[in-house]
Amino acid sequence: MTRRFIGTADPSLINPQRRNLLAGGATAVAAAGLAGFSKTAIAQAAAAAAKPLPPYVAWKDPGAMIVHTSSTLETKRSAFGTSIITPTDQLYIRNNLPAPDASIVADRDGWEVTVEGVKNPRKLTVKELKGMGLETTAMVLQCSGNGRGYFPSKPSGTPWQVGAAGCVVWSGVPVRAVVEALGGVTDGAVYMTSTGGEKLPEGLDPKSAVVERSVPAKAMADALLAWEMNGVPIPLAHGGPLRIIVPGYSGVNNIKYIKRLAFTAEQSEAAIQKTGYRLSPLGQKGDPSQPSVWEMSAKSWINSPAPENGSVQAGMVQIKGVAFGGIHAVKAVEVSVDGGKTWKQAKFVGPDLGRYAWRQFVLGVKLPAGEYTIASRAIDSEGNQQPEERLENASGYNNSSWRDHALKITVA
Amino acid sequence: MTRRFIGTADPSLINPQRRNLLAGGATAVAAAGLAGFSKTAIAQAAAAAAKPLPPYVAWKDPGAMIVHTSSTLETKRSAFGTSIITPTDQLYIRNNLPAPDASIVADRDGWEVTVEGVKNPRKLTVKELKGMGLETTAMVLQCSGNGRGYFPSKPSGTPWQVGAAGCVVWSGVPVRAVVEALGGVTDGAVYMTSTGGEKLPEGLDPKSAVVERSVPAKAMADALLAWEMNGVPIPLAHGGPLRIIVPGYSGVNNIKYIKRLAFTAEQSEAAIQKTGYRLSPLGQKGDPSQPSVWEMSAKSWINSPAPENGSVQAGMVQIKGVAFGGIHAVKAVEVSVDGGKTWKQAKFVGPDLGRYAWRQFVLGVKLPAGEYTIASRAIDSEGNQQPEERLENASGYNNSSWRDHALKITVA
Repeated sequence: MTRRFIGTADPSLINPQRRNLLAGGATAVAAAGLAGFSKTAIAQAAAAAAKPLPPYVAWKDPGAMIVHTSSTLETKRSAFGTSIITPTDQLYIRNNLPAPDASIVADRDGWEVTVEGVKNPRKLTVKELKGMGLETTAMVLQCSGNGRGYFPSKPSGTPWQVGAAGCVVWSGVPVRAVVEALGGVTDGAVYMTSTGGEKLPEGLDPKSAVVERSVPAKAMADALLAWEMNGVPIPLAHGGPLRIIVPGYSGVNNIKYIKRLAFTAEQSEAAIQKTGYRLSPLGQKGDPSQPSVWEMSAKSWINSPAPENGSVQAGMVQIKGVAFGGIHAVKAVEVSVDGGKTWKQAKFVGPDLGRYAWRQFVLGVKLPAGEYTIASRAIDSEGNQQPEERLENASGYNNSSWRDHALKITVA
Repeated sequence: MTRRFIGTADPSLINPQRRNLLAGGATAVAAAGLAGFSKTAIAQAAAAAAKPLPPYVAWKDPGAMIVHTSSTLETKRSAFGTSIITPTDQLYIRNNLPAPDASIVADRDGWEVTVEGVKNPRKLTVKELKGMGLETTAMVLQCSGNGRGYFPSKPSGTPWQVGAAGCVVWSGVPVRAVVEALGGVTDGAVYMTSTGGEKLPEGLDPKSAVVERSVPAKAMADALLAWEMNGVPIPLAHGGPLRIIVPGYSGVNNIKYIKRLAFTAEQSEAAIQKTGYRLSPLGQKGDPSQPSVWEMSAKSWINSPAPENGSVQAGMVQIKGVAFGGIHAVKAVEVSVDGGKTWKQAKFVGPDLGRYAWRQFVLGVKLPAGEYTIASRAIDSEGNQQPEERLENASGYNNSSWRDHALKITVA
């Protein structure tokens, strides 16, 4: 099937419901007095919000997105709502390479993935995978750089605030069912290595460009080879026809257009694994001795009230946000309105979508007129608490500091 | 904010991901050998599938919808997917009157609802409601006429198959929190009566046209005054800025653009309550002595394989569908491949979104080539089983017959 796109994001062509979502839009970010957020980052974000949607994701909701570059789009804080699942047209985009040609989703069932490092390695089509089992998992997809915008060291890379994350429902076949059907993992395999189907730039060493990530093989327990997200076939921009979903692991490990799944003795030699996405000390380059961005940890943030939504009326204020545990379930979340001096437990609202999903929280607080620094901190099922301080690192990964995510609001 | 619409549903303007959802589209319905489905209904459905989307819902996914009339749009069986939540742009539409002017969603927070039948009756804006509390509920929204197309008596009304239903996440304030804040319900109030904000046709007795429904007051326990669905402000076509959500009750009781919420001693005198939506014996008109369409009961159906998706390959076949309990939680679902002679329990997949949500189920069955009649039947937490036969009634409401919903498939 041939496919056409809207060439420009003419708002008149877009779902009308979206156009009331935000009062303010592009200008709101610039006006935001974000706690701990650098002037440069605010300026970058304001510029980004004004950019049109790139053609391959022209179907995204322009009112909900901050366009950093054609391959990096962030969900606005004010767009998250309280219904748990992030709508597909509001979900962030972060592509390491341009997406493959749209022709690959013309015959979704025909897409092939090679499975290696099992007793009976073979190539499987999506159609065959669909016959092998079904699981549906709600999971926080979060770029490892989410929150990078709060690093005072201004690491290179997109200055994401909170919106390089979403909670998504994925459907596919459990990786363990595929592995079982192929006779089990070969001895000595300790990593699960996934390779993306992007076209590599010519004239380069493939290792320098290929999107290939290794995670510990134990991650296969809850991993899916997924063909559906939020009720629709996975859009090309999000990795369709087939994406590996590794719940609890940060975004980069969830390889799009997966064409090879291998159980390996060693981690991939690709740059994106070997030196990229490493937690390097400030001023140092990445190398294999440093931790890779794998498991996510407890994190939360407040979506409302927020400075970009303007001043807040004195009286009972409903403080709302999201909290998740990463690799573990989230157990509780606390909210502070005095910059972290005192904390109160917030209430989770809505159904619990399982270990890897986020939960929406709310705390009603009576606030007289004044200035407040509001913050939230999550605690996971193992008792790990979201930390006050970020872990400094050269690339600005894994920022879960509650202090960095605090917001200054004015109650009038 | 002024709003513009796409005048025609030009598929080139639509989210590209949708265009691969279905192979076949409009022609598939005509080809379907649906068990127990009348030739007339198939012809109607085929004609309906070919109609363009009406302008006010031009943002719906044309590949997922059957357009019966401008106020009745059904989700195609093949569009349901396995990710639990029905995407907003694939959800059915059934409007008793044309939607109010789009200007009512230009200032969502300013929309007013009058609350009566409480100690301190008053008018509340959506902004005020947002300050009073927050709950998020996943719930099956189902038109009481869903399945009418399977009635051999051919009742007047839309011949819905399975697609006048969806599972939606709603966010709003609990009705009980509003009632508590207004001093509680007045003595003698046994009904909760909701009035829609549609403009009534001129020159008619308002009672003959107003969309006003009464339900037992106990339904307030889990009811919401909702402003958000599936992560976005409720679109006008689905009842925004404010809709009452009465979980477990059929669609018509979930009044859109609610402008009055009253706790009353008597049921509404509106025709839609008094004589409409009654379970009348065949050949009789509705009257207040007959049961109203209120609580939904256990129901399930198979979405895949289905005749409209063509022939099925012999071997392991994954039979997939949805099951819900209506007013109670669903406890289990069974699947038959021999027209109901023998049954096997299917497996629920994905997170449990609570009492009022549906669950996706799957059963892997080895099927050699041949003809099969596949069926499913749900059982709720109280032990009530989805019945084999429909309850005959003049208007074709509440069809939960598993036999009517059985599908004839060919395995080749």
